[in-house]
Amino acid sequence: MHDQLSFTFAALADPTRRAILARLALGETSVTELAMPFEMSMPAVSKHLKVLERAGLIGRGREAQWRPCRLEAGPLKEAASWIEEYRRFWEERLDRLDAYLREIQAARTKSKTNGSGKKRSKTKPKG
Amino acid sequence: MHDQLSFTFAALADPTRRAILARLALGETSVTELAMPFEMSMPAVSKHLKVLERAGLIGRGREAQWRPCRLEAGPLKEAASWIEEYRRFWEERLDRLDAYLREIQAARTKSKTNGSGKKRSKTKPKG
Repeated sequence: MHDQLSFTFAALADPTRRAILARLALGETSVTELAMPFEMSMPAVSKHLKVLERAGLIGRGREAQWRPCRLEAGPLKEAASWIEEYRRFWEERLDRLDAYLREIQAARTKSKTNGSGKKRSKTKPKG
Repeated sequence: MHDQLSFTFAALADPTRRAILARLALGETSVTELAMPFEMSMPAVSKHLKVLERAGLIGRGREAQWRPCRLEAGPLKEAASWIEEYRRFWEERLDRLDAYLREIQAARTKSKTNGSGKKRSKTKPKG
């Protein structure tokens, strides 16, 4: 059951890991700097980074000794594509709500015009 | 750490649960029918359904005794919105690849038109 998509979603299922990705969206940085805003031990932060790295969501530089972390958006693209398949479901739900509101509006307008008597205005045809 | 988005991503981090959602995208159905394509015990399927239900990704009917399951796309919309924030990163990556390919193409064209090669304007002074 260790498919890429499951690794990606599992990696995203934690607010600290999502906050790490949000920080890396601003630019690459060291693990020490990454750890600063979190009240966490370095091993705890390293554990989160390993989950993100295994999912391919972050890359670590090999050139410098501080091995900067950077965001890798490839797996996010795959996850977005999977979710997009369901877009019509949440849009349909909004459409249904919209249709329902229009229905109420129409019923109100009808009851108003029935009450006062509808007047039809005639317009002179052009030409 | 039990925020809605984490519940949603955790629920999606399993191929069986994603397959259940894909089945429910075709229409609501009973748990027995849902379990059929999976070589799984009913308690195992029920466990997956509970994870999906807790995340709000499925709803269970209360009217009928067989309590049909249906897809609820609300949490998927929220997850899609979160991922969309990172769209520019995967698009930038494709843009960079595109720019790189154009660069190679330009360099090739240039080396062809220059013909025999580059003239050196400076020579390194000896010793």
